[in-house]
Amino acid sequence: MKILLIGASGTLGQAVAANLGARHDIVRAGRNSGEERVDLTQHDSVQALFQRLGRVDAIVSTAGRLHFGPLSEMTAAQFNIGLQDKLLGQVNLALLGQHHLSEGGSITLTSGIVAIEPIRLGANATAVNAALEGFVTAAAIELPRGIRINAVSPTILTESVPAYGSLFAGFESVPAARAALAYQRSVEGAQTGRVLRVD
Amino acid sequence: MKILLIGASGTLGQAVAANLGARHDIVRAGRNSGEERVDLTQHDSVQALFQRLGRVDAIVSTAGRLHFGPLSEMTAAQFNIGLQDKLLGQVNLALLGQHHLSEGGSITLTSGIVAIEPIRLGANATAVNAALEGFVTAAAIELPRGIRINAVSPTILTESVPAYGSLFAGFESVPAARAALAYQRSVEGAQTGRVLRVD
Repeated sequence: MKILLIGASGTLGQAVAANLGARHDIVRAGRNSGEERVDLTQHDSVQALFQRLGRVDAIVSTAGRLHFGPLSEMTAAQFNIGLQDKLLGQVNLALLGQHHLSEGGSITLTSGIVAIEPIRLGANATAVNAALEGFVTAAAIELPRGIRINAVSPTILTESVPAYGSLFAGFESVPAARAALAYQRSVEGAQTGRVLRVD
Repeated sequence: MKILLIGASGTLGQAVAANLGARHDIVRAGRNSGEERVDLTQHDSVQALFQRLGRVDAIVSTAGRLHFGPLSEMTAAQFNIGLQDKLLGQVNLALLGQHHLSEGGSITLTSGIVAIEPIRLGANATAVNAALEGFVTAAAIELPRGIRINAVSPTILTESVPAYGSLFAGFESVPAARAALAYQRSVEGAQTGRVLRVD
């Protein structure tokens, strides 16, 4: 398969590239690195990427920024960061990507455990991740030509504990390589409209 | 209680006003009608409303626009309509409103059944409603001074069947007056971080 992977330079993206790259042709894309540069929040940037690539068999995103901060100080402008970046960026990728996928192709987006396990400072993250999970369940019932869409929802990665572990007190971490298996299940499996939780 | 009700002129808002108004002092607000005018998508408009009102005991929103349309033609700009209006508008109301509520006060937002029961043309609605439901579960764990927050998630209203029934094939409708009971439960009850489904 020819697989477009956005966010390929991140901790999760590298693990997904290692897993899928063993059997497939991976195009690594990112905002600031990778063979292809793309800004998911920009319609023209994503459209141009697909024009360059032609047809792909799978689209995988492990990209997206969120806002973390105390609810008592949070502003709508801060909350909108996650809406525009991790949520609308990935939705934009799916909306444009649906027209560039081969029959039976797939889209795999990334949400996160706080969708269903809220943490302090994480109101934006919970809302954005829950929205992404809702989006894939709804998009799945409308996609034509056997195209599938799923979300992978990992808990905190073991590799990310030094940086973010304090936010996730008492959460069991998973190695990125284990989370990558869920992306493999989404890309190589047959399910659609599912949230694949890794925790 | 002194209750601020946004979206008071809508089908659901009128039913909530009738229920809560029997026992409480309701301030009816809306974008284009009501005693108070407010645009939830505008920080300054919401802030000015709270400056005029002073402290309130409960905030209820039955307001918010979504985008409905086929996924195959949907653009990120269209998807953003629901993100900016029903989602970020209600989040903005909660973020600013938390500072103007009395101790033990409550915030009640409105999501909708498509959060968990997707329909054709409804990818934006599912994502927005799921995000709102996520937001209240996360916000509830950070709100101080006994302030509570819940979402009411009604199915299609019986009064709305003539206009929107074709989107909701096989869904059992509920009268707005029955949906209003869930708002009463949220405002007069003690629960927080809950999604009160009415279907």
